[in-house]
Amino acid sequence: MHLTPSPNEAVRHILLIDCPDQKGLVHAITGILSDAGLNITQNDEFVDPETGHFFMRTECEGATRDTELLPLLEASLPSNARIQLNPRKNKPIVVLATREHHCLGDLLIRNQFNELNANILAVISNYKQLQPLVGAFGVPFHYVTHEGKTREQHEDEILRLLELYHPDYLVLAKYMRVLTPDFVARFPNRIVNIHHSFLPAFIGANPYRQAFDRGVKLIGATAHFVNNDLDDGPILAQEVLNVNHRFSPKDMAQAGKEIEKLTLANALQLVFQDRVFVYGNKTVVF
Amino acid sequence: MHLTPSPNEAVRHILLIDCPDQKGLVHAITGILSDAGLNITQNDEFVDPETGHFFMRTECEGATRDTELLPLLEASLPSNARIQLNPRKNKPIVVLATREHHCLGDLLIRNQFNELNANILAVISNYKQLQPLVGAFGVPFHYVTHEGKTREQHEDEILRLLELYHPDYLVLAKYMRVLTPDFVARFPNRIVNIHHSFLPAFIGANPYRQAFDRGVKLIGATAHFVNNDLDDGPILAQEVLNVNHRFSPKDMAQAGKEIEKLTLANALQLVFQDRVFVYGNKTVVF
Amino acid sequence: MHLTPSPNEAVRHILLIDCPDQKGLVHAITGILSDAGLNITQNDEFVDPETGHFFMRTECEGATRDTELLPLLEASLPSNARIQLNPRKNKPIVVLATREHHCLGDLLIRNQFNELNANILAVISNYKQLQPLVGAFGVPFHYVTHEGKTREQHEDEILRLLELYHPDYLVLAKYMRVLTPDFVARFPNRIVNIHHSFLPAFIGANPYRQAFDRGVKLIGATAHFVNNDLDDGPILAQEVLNVNHRFSPKDMAQAGKEIEKLTLANALQLVFQDRVFVYGNKTVVF
Amino acid sequence: MHLTPSPNEAVRHILLIDCPDQKGLVHAITGILSDAGLNITQNDEFVDPETGHFFMRTECEGATRDTELLPLLEASLPSNARIQLNPRKNKPIVVLATREHHCLGDLLIRNQFNELNANILAVISNYKQLQPLVGAFGVPFHYVTHEGKTREQHEDEILRLLELYHPDYLVLAKYMRVLTPDFVARFPNRIVNIHHSFLPAFIGANPYRQAFDRGVKLIGATAHFVNNDLDDGPILAQEVLNVNHRFSPKDMAQAGKEIEKLTLANALQLVFQDRVFVYGNKTVVF
Repeated sequence: MHLTPSPNEAVRHILLIDCPDQKGLVHAITGILSDAGLNITQNDEFVDPETGHFFMRTECEGATRDTELLPLLEASLPSNARIQLNPRKNKPIVVLATREHHCLGDLLIRNQFNELNANILAVISNYKQLQPLVGAFGVPFHYVTHEGKTREQHEDEILRLLELYHPDYLVLAKYMRVLTPDFVARFPNRIVNIHHSFLPAFIGANPYRQAFDRGVKLIGATAHFVNNDLDDGPILAQEVLNVNHRFSPKDMAQAGKEIEKLTLANALQLVFQDRVFVYGNKTVVF
Repeated sequence: MHLTPSPNEAVRHILLIDCPDQKGLVHAITGILSDAGLNITQNDEFVDPETGHFFMRTECEGATRDTELLPLLEASLPSNARIQLNPRKNKPIVVLATREHHCLGDLLIRNQFNELNANILAVISNYKQLQPLVGAFGVPFHYVTHEGKTREQHEDEILRLLELYHPDYLVLAKYMRVLTPDFVARFPNRIVNIHHSFLPAFIGANPYRQAFDRGVKLIGATAHFVNNDLDDGPILAQEVLNVNHRFSPKDMAQAGKEIEKLTLANALQLVFQDRVFVYGNKTVVF
Repeated sequence: MHLTPSPNEAVRHILLIDCPDQKGLVHAITGILSDAGLNITQNDEFVDPETGHFFMRTECEGATRDTELLPLLEASLPSNARIQLNPRKNKPIVVLATREHHCLGDLLIRNQFNELNANILAVISNYKQLQPLVGAFGVPFHYVTHEGKTREQHEDEILRLLELYHPDYLVLAKYMRVLTPDFVARFPNRIVNIHHSFLPAFIGANPYRQAFDRGVKLIGATAHFVNNDLDDGPILAQEVLNVNHRFSPKDMAQAGKEIEKLTLANALQLVFQDRVFVYGNKTVVF
Repeated sequence: MHLTPSPNEAVRHILLIDCPDQKGLVHAITGILSDAGLNITQNDEFVDPETGHFFMRTECEGATRDTELLPLLEASLPSNARIQLNPRKNKPIVVLATREHHCLGDLLIRNQFNELNANILAVISNYKQLQPLVGAFGVPFHYVTHEGKTREQHEDEILRLLELYHPDYLVLAKYMRVLTPDFVARFPNRIVNIHHSFLPAFIGANPYRQAFDRGVKLIGATAHFVNNDLDDGPILAQEVLNVNHRFSPKDMAQAGKEIEKLTLANALQLVFQDRVFVYGNKTVVF
C-alpha cells in the first residue's frame, strides 16, 4: 500500500502549474510567490524529457488572495500555461455506487472521521441496497433507478442532483454503468473510477473466471480518471495482491474487492491533496 | 496484503491435530476420517524438524458427529495430542476498543456484510467515543469506564459482560490497556491484539516520534495472540508499508493505523478459518 | 519477493501424485509410505473443488527404492494417476539465452554458490555476447547462430547439444526466439520462460513505450512453463514493482529486467524443489 | 523492490543544497542557474516543518564550470549552507567484504554491465574465499587479513590501499567487522552498510535463531550510512520479505541474504545518483 503524507498544517495553498518548458520558469514563479509574502515548504518539478513539458507543484505557507496572485502568474508564464491555485481544504465530492459496498463502506468511515481530505456530500445509486449503510453515517442517499429510462434520461436525473451539490469530484465506487461521452465531458479529470486488473488482461465476460482458469498469481486494481472509455483514462494508482490455486473464482473476486478498496483510497488521497497532473493520457503524480 | 482463500462451500468440518510425530500418523487419522464417510478436500501437514512435533489441518466434506469421531481419534493418537474438530461456522466474538476507530470501523463493515467469518456480539470500551459508530451498525456497545476502579475491578465488570456473550475470541481493536495475567489466562490463544512495529524497534514513549527522528522507511504492524506480555505473544501476521522523510510524526501514526487495520483483518481471517496452531511462543499457520 | 523454504536435510524423496479424487486416497498412499519405512515430514494436499482432481506432495525421510515403491503406489491408485517419486537432488539444467545478461548473471552466481537447487550444465546462445560472462564461471558456452538457417535447422543443432547434456529442464533466460511446437513437445512442462507483464497488457511492438505512454504505475513479470504459445503456458510466479512518471521508457525496461530476474529465480526455486503440478493450463504450487 | 529512475541523458550536473530555510531561496538559486545558462529538468525541494531546514536537489542540463557557479551560489546562500555541484558520472567505489558472496556477486554483475552508476575500483577482504569470484570479473582483489593485528593496524593497511584508489564511497558488502570511530570519521556519510532487520528487533547472538523461535512472518534489511555505531547510521532503504513456519533458521538466514542483496542495490542507486541528504541521524531521499 502506498500512503501519501499530508501537507504540514501551515500550508494554505497548493499551486499547480504546467506548460511548455522554458529557461527561468522556476525562477519567475518563485519570485512571484516570494514577492507575495508566501514561503515555499515543498516544491516538486518535473520536465518531461521527450516533450519538454514542465510540471510544478508547490505547497505555500502564508496568506494571499487568488485575485492578486493569479494575474501576476499569468502575466509571467506562457499563454498556454495551466495554473491552479487551490486553497487547502476538503474537496466536496459525490459518490456514485451500485450494489457493492466494499469501496463505499471504506470511504464512509474515512469521511466520518475526516480522513478523506474530502467531504462526501451525497451518495447516488441506481439500486437501493446500500441505502441503510449510507444512512447509518448520516450521508444523503439518492436512489435513481435506471430502469425504464434511456441512458441519457438516467444521467439527466443524476445531473440534476449534482447541480444541487456542486461537487469538485465524482467518485465511482463500483458504479457499474458506462457513462455517456456527454456526461463525462462535463467533468474532465474530475471523475475517479476503480476496477480490477490482471496479468495478463482478460477481455470479455467474467474475468475472475478467466483468471482462475489461467491460474494467475496476482490480482490487481487500477484507479484512474474517466475521460472517454470507462476503463481507459489516465492511471492514478495501481496495486496488487497475491493469490494462488486455493482461491476459487469467488475468492479471487473477494481479493479483487479488497485491492480495489485499498487502491481507490490511495488514489483519492493523491487527487484530493492536489498531487496529480493529467498530461495526454497519463498522469504526473507528485 | 495477504488474503486467505476460504474453504469451499461443501466443507463442513475443520480438523486440527498436533502431537509429537510418529510414523503412520497421517495414515491413522485419514483412515478414521475415511471410515466415518468424510472426504478430505484440503490437508496441510508440517513436522517441525527440530522438535519432531506434528501439525495437521484437514478440511472435510460430509456429515459426522463430534461425539462419534473424537473418541476414535483420541484412541488412535498419542495421549498428549491436541485435537479440535471445529464445525465450519462464524465464530462468536467480542471486540474491545478504546477511542481509536480505524480497526473497529473496518471490522464493523466486514461484520455487517458477513465477510468476517465471525459475528461481533458486542463491543466493549472504556470510553464513549465510539458508541455512535458501533450503534450505527446495530451492534451492542458497552461502556465500562476504568476510572475510579482497580484494574481487577474493571476487568471483573468486563468479565461479567463476557459471560453474557460467551465469545470464542476477544479482539483487541486498539484496546489500549494492559490486561492482567489472570484475565489473559481465561482466554488462552483466544485474544488477538494488533500493534505497530518498527525496524529497528523503538522502546519507550512516543515510538512514532522516535521513528521520525530516525528516518525509518517502513512502518509495520504485528497481529498476535495475547498470552502474557501485551505485545509479545505468538505472531499471527505482519505487514509493512513505505514511508519517507515527508511523513510527519502524525503522518507516520496515520500510516501505522492503516497498516494495523489491514494486518488485523488478515490475522482474523486466519484465526476464524481455523488455520492457526500455537506451539511454544510461535504459530504454525496453514 | 516470495522466497521458498527448502526441505529439511533429512528429506530424501519428494512424492508428487495427482489423479481424480476418491475417498481414502490419502489413507492408501500414506499406508504404503509407512509400510516402506518412510516418515512424512511435510504433506500438502488439494482437491480442486470444481473438477474433483486430487493433488498431493509429500516430503519423506528414510531410504527406499523407486523400483519397490512405485509398483505399490500404482497398484493402489486410479489407473490414470500421475506419480513421480523424485530423489531430492540438484536438477541438471541447460540455460538458453540471447544477449541480455540480467537473468543469466543471477543464475550463474546462484549456481556457483549452490543456491539454485540445480546444476547448470551449459548455456546455449544464438549470440556471442554473453560468452565471457559464462566463461568466467567455468560453465560451458555454446554459440549456435540462427543466421542462415531455418528455424528447424537451428533447433536441430540445439537438440543435438541437449542430447549430450540430458537436462531435466530448459531455462529460457531471455531467449528471444519462438520455439517450434515440435521442439516444445519434446519438453512438456520442462521449459521455463520469463517475460515482462503489464496492467493493462500491451499488445504489439515496444510494450515499454506503450506502458510509458499510458503512465502505468506497476511493471510486472510472469514466469511460466512453455507448452504451446511462447507467452501463454501455465503460470509459475508473478511479481511487480512500482514505477512512476519519472521513469523513461528505458528506465521502465530496466525495471522490467530487475523484476524478471527476481521472478525467474523465485519460479525456479518452486520448480527445482518439485513444488509444481501442471493441471490444464494452470499450476498448483505447494 | 523500489527501483529509482535515472536522470535523463542530457543532465550534466546535479546540485544539492541544504541550509536553514529563508524566504526567496528557490528564487535566488534558480536565478543563478538560469543566468549560468543551465536548464532545470527536475527539482525537488523539502522544508522540514519542525526545524525549518531547507533541502533542494536539482538536475541541470547544459555546460557550466564549478569554479564559476559555486562562488555565485555561496554568495547568495546563508553562510552555513552545504552546497554540492556534482558532475553526473559513475562514482569510483571500493567494496569491503568478508566471506559472504550474495551482495558482492550482485554488485559485480551490475558493475560489469555498467548498471551501478559506479565503478568498482577494487574489493578488499579479510578472507580469501571471494577472490575467485572477484577475479572472474577482472576486478582487483586485495586480501588483508586481520589475524595477528590490532584493529588499528588492520585498518591502517586498508587505508593505505584506499589511498591508492581514492574512492568516493566505501560499500560494506557484508563486511563483518566493526570499524573504529577514527576510520569512520575519515568517510563521513560515505560508507554504506547493509544488515538484516526484524520485527521485533532481536538483540544478541544468532538473531535468525531468535526470529525462528519467535515465529516472525517478515524478514527485512536496512541499508544505511555508517557514522558511529555500525548498525545505527542514517537509514537509506528498507525492504522486507515474507517468511513462515516452514522456514528453518537456515532458510531465514537465506531469506535475509536475498533481501540484503536487493536493499543494498536499491540504496546504492539512491546514493550514486546523488539523491540523498543526511540531516541529523536521518536522510532526506529525493
